Amino acid sequence: MKLSKLFPPTLRGMRSNMIISHLLLEKAGFIRSVGSAGIFALLPLGKLVHDRICGIVFNEMTKVGIQHVDLPILQSSSLWEQTGRWEKYLKSKTMFTTQERYSSEMFGLSPTAEEVITMLVANDIKSWRQLPVILHQIGRKFRDEMRPRYGMVRSREFVMSDAYSFDIDEEGMHKSFMLMRDVYSRIFLRLGLTNCVSVQADSGAIGGQGSAEFMAVCDVGEDTLLTCTRCDYGANTEKANSSYPIYQYNSAQRPLRHELTPNAKTVEELERFFPDIKAHDMIKTIIFTVNPESNNPYEVAVCIRGDLAVNTVKLTNFLTVDSVVPAIDRVVEEVTGAAVGFAGPLGLTKVKRILFDHSTQGMTNFLCGFNTTDHHALDVNFGRDLETPKEFYELHTATVGHGCPECGDGLEESKGIEVGHVFMLQQAYAEAMGATFLDSAGQAKAIWMGCYGIGTTRLLHAIIEQNHDDHGIIWPITVAPFLVHIVPVDYTNQQQSSLANELYENLSAQGVDVLFDDRTERAGVKFNDADLIGCPYRITVGRLATERKVELRVRETGASQILNIDEITERCVEFQQTRTHNNTTSQLTLAKTT
Amino acid sequence: MKLSKLFPPTLRGMRSNMIISHLLLEKAGFIRSVGSAGIFALLPLGKLVHDRICGIVFNEMTKVGIQHVDLPILQSSSLWEQTGRWEKYLKSKTMFTTQERYSSEMFGLSPTAEEVITMLVANDIKSWRQLPVILHQIGRKFRDEMRPRYGMVRSREFVMSDAYSFDIDEEGMHKSFMLMRDVYSRIFLRLGLTNCVSVQADSGAIGGQGSAEFMAVCDVGEDTLLTCTRCDYGANTEKANSSYPIYQYNSAQRPLRHELTPNAKTVEELERFFPDIKAHDMIKTIIFTVNPESNNPYEVAVCIRGDLAVNTVKLTNFLTVDSVVPAIDRVVEEVTGAAVGFAGPLGLTKVKRILFDHSTQGMTNFLCGFNTTDHHALDVNFGRDLETPKEFYELHTATVGHGCPECGDGLEESKGIEVGHVFMLQQAYAEAMGATFLDSAGQAKAIWMGCYGIGTTRLLHAIIEQNHDDHGIIWPITVAPFLVHIVPVDYTNQQQSSLANELYENLSAQGVDVLFDDRTERAGVKFNDADLIGCPYRITVGRLATERKVELRVRETGASQILNIDEITERCVEFQQTRTHNNTTSQLTLAKTT
Repeated sequence: MKLSKLFPPTLRGMRSNMIISHLLLEKAGFIRSVGSAGIFALLPLGKLVHDRICGIVFNEMTKVGIQHVDLPILQSSSLWEQTGRWEKYLKSKTMFTTQERYSSEMFGLSPTAEEVITMLVANDIKSWRQLPVILHQIGRKFRDEMRPRYGMVRSREFVMSDAYSFDIDEEGMHKSFMLMRDVYSRIFLRLGLTNCVSVQADSGAIGGQGSAEFMAVCDVGEDTLLTCTRCDYGANTEKANSSYPIYQYNSAQRPLRHELTPNAKTVEELERFFPDIKAHDMIKTIIFTVNPESNNPYEVAVCIRGDLAVNTVKLTNFLTVDSVVPAIDRVVEEVTGAAVGFAGPLGLTKVKRILFDHSTQGMTNFLCGFNTTDHHALDVNFGRDLETPKEFYELHTATVGHGCPECGDGLEESKGIEVGHVFMLQQAYAEAMGATFLDSAGQAKAIWMGCYGIGTTRLLHAIIEQNHDDHGIIWPITVAPFLVHIVPVDYTNQQQSSLANELYENLSAQGVDVLFDDRTERAGVKFNDADLIGCPYRITVGRLATERKVELRVRETGASQILNIDEITERCVEFQQTRTHNNTTSQLTLAKTT
Repeated sequence: MKLSKLFPPTLRGMRSNMIISHLLLEKAGFIRSVGSAGIFALLPLGKLVHDRICGIVFNEMTKVGIQHVDLPILQSSSLWEQTGRWEKYLKSKTMFTTQERYSSEMFGLSPTAEEVITMLVANDIKSWRQLPVILHQIGRKFRDEMRPRYGMVRSREFVMSDAYSFDIDEEGMHKSFMLMRDVYSRIFLRLGLTNCVSVQADSGAIGGQGSAEFMAVCDVGEDTLLTCTRCDYGANTEKANSSYPIYQYNSAQRPLRHELTPNAKTVEELERFFPDIKAHDMIKTIIFTVNPESNNPYEVAVCIRGDLAVNTVKLTNFLTVDSVVPAIDRVVEEVTGAAVGFAGPLGLTKVKRILFDHSTQGMTNFLCGFNTTDHHALDVNFGRDLETPKEFYELHTATVGHGCPECGDGLEESKGIEVGHVFMLQQAYAEAMGATFLDSAGQAKAIWMGCYGIGTTRLLHAIIEQNHDDHGIIWPITVAPFLVHIVPVDYTNQQQSSLANELYENLSAQGVDVLFDDRTERAGVKFNDADLIGCPYRITVGRLATERKVELRVRETGASQILNIDEITERCVEFQQTRTHNNTTSQLTLAKTT
């Protein structure tokens, strides 16, 4: 490809309120925002990279026997109603919908494709002999984001690789799930995402019981992760568990009392008010409103140890409801009969449920709100002042400072871009849609499913966030738009332009992916563009052209060496072979001669 | 690929009210209708073929320097309003639309992408030095068809290859247009569409002045074509011109008269009523209503020689209006003051315009309606009884029986599926969207554009319509899902299954695309499935397995020969090389040894 013909040219002097990957993608001309927030076009360079990403995804899937399909974007509401997700998605306002004008049939624009694929499988799979099967596609997905941001990281239209597994039993589902986890790990490694962690995650609108996210760790990630400093535990904070400090409580119960605590509403204020009482001696009670936007919202209270916080994602999942938010002040006042800051479990009857976090189990003589403005209860005890809860639940927010829930070691916090998500769906979709098979005994059983997603357009960002410097992008060899970028220092110099053209023709003929800067720009402009676009190798054709020698420079390290025209050709063909057959990670070295 | 694992299995006993290509695609498991009319999923076999089709399209485009992009499906109404096409598409009710829920922004689901690509080019192209450029994508398109039919031939969601050319002047646009016509011809030939004609066509909603359709000729096509039996003239009947018989008219004008013609309303009835007066001595007058669904419909009359018919597509384009339909009886009666069948140009004042077809030029002493029930005027003459029209227009319908408009030879009628359409858009889009460049004199000029489309999912049908027999599909070697289909006659026979497996492993290892029927079905079932699926070559492993010999059979011709295991391997590798490097059409022969 000749740079003079490449659409579009690179840009200069751009606004910088973008994350670095978005800025570089726009500036180097890989993508453009088109008409609206969160809608992008892949331009020729961006499409080359995205095609290479998709190629690696297809290749790794094919290797393990996964079959590829193309599912429609327009999905009839009638299918989604079978699983109850039509109403759910409409309620969450995240699905784009459209109406057919003649029959008035409603369609959702595919945010995911469980219903369609389950229907296909339900119609064509009859026997256990046909299972397991895993079906995969790469296609456009849509999500009506309230706040699209970070370029294609959170866009309204994006490209996703989505796969669906179908098995005869739970063991089979687990096997498919583990297979896909391994495939995903290999894919991310080949893409040059060297810092990618797999963490436990919330399943969200997809449902199912087990799910894991693949996170590309970087500074600007939307998600916060907690990972263990020793073992391989990792989780999204939405989902993370942790081992928090355990305290010994005095088993001798002191008499219940209540005290005036004017304006002491928070745990911190109470610690100052009662210097002898620590946060872990208190139980705080938070009032939540469940399904606030529905016709039947209601309140629940969560009691948790004073030094911990409630995780609303865990609470939402535990209650299996659409959404949970902290109650607004007016509702808290109505429910507790007191000002905000004095809620407590004693005599709290106006909530539908009171849930106790695990952390409150075994506490004695604790402080809590008294549902009376400016009053708290002290030396409260389970079994005497209030019924001992039958069950305690895992509802706390894990944070740095807590221990790893698996090995007890420290937890670290980092940011990440979610690049993959794998789910065990169990039998819910199959049961809802009648996707059954006859087992070896002739019994009809519902299929066990899993689903698996990779955001392929988002991956451009993740790769750049992990592979760039102050000058531009540093593409891994596996996904670079071109492998080699030829820059003649002075294109008006006959010897340089002639040698550069010869090299370009030669390398192209041998199947090397070459970008050739045939513009008559100043050398500095061309070098800057080469660094910005980020091809792994730059060949500079300068004054040594007279000796038929050129400079080979590695974008990542800046290392360079002078080679004659035969050597450079041989080396570039080698690089191309590495790129084509690369099965692990990128190897951006000068190999042999350095 | 092992057939026992392939999703889905083939079907038996299907309903037959489908066109043959649709029936075969469903029965052999290449596609499935999903949830609604006109919405399809490509299943693994269908995706393999579609990928190969797209691969050939990309390859031929890349060869001539075309660059590839991926444009969004969600296209803001604000872009489409700039060209006036938002209202146009809403009016025609063919575009799916959706609304963003937070900002209420409206989007169309891309039926085509002129606006988006013109906006991109407008922002990034500044100088004549950056032109010409041709940008291409393959992506999903949507059309709210009132009557989706013929499977993916006319579906609501489909895949299209769409390219857009940008040039500095009209000559450049023509050059790009001719380049794309050549590229299209090469593509269709490589796809195995041996009977594909390029015809003149109506530009429809895309606009522009010149357009040509590529038609795959077959029995079930939606379009009717007229092609010359001698020269290379061809056109869609919507657009076709023709040379109809020319008659000599007596220049001596006879006196005007009118006669009672009770119940003689049509040309045929008038010929019977006046045995001496022929159809070509009459002018018939048809009343049309323009933009009937708008707030301001109006009428025009078209006068045409009695033996010809008016082409409403030509009329619509000539008037540059949205739509034209024959006026309903009540309107005709109101406009003419007479019953239907007696309209004529004399004193016809209640229409906005009277248009005369070319065929009426030079007629003398003609018969026409008199705008009085049961009366016709005879011996009417231009310049005496009515003003001689200042202009005559090309509005007639060409039919078989007319001569070729270019060489005068006969015209033939055939049916065809439109597989490609190329348009010269001129400067309309660029002017509407401010896509200008500075020419070499520093003057801002609007870019000259062309646009080019291939229906890639529809191509599966066109290829099958031209390549099938009573037993199933006969895929051209270039696009077949697999090249070779191995069928062991008796898979329970140890020698057969062992040799078949050896061959499968061997061929796969050497990069041959093989489908292996490893099922324990009866031989007849397996042979039927092989013919149905339609891979170009079948290898039958039967009782000669004991001698390490197999039968090679060509799907297209049924020719077969016995080869030993080394010979068959060598031949299959050759076939694969032909498939990979095939640059012309498919060559389904046994080559060398027959």
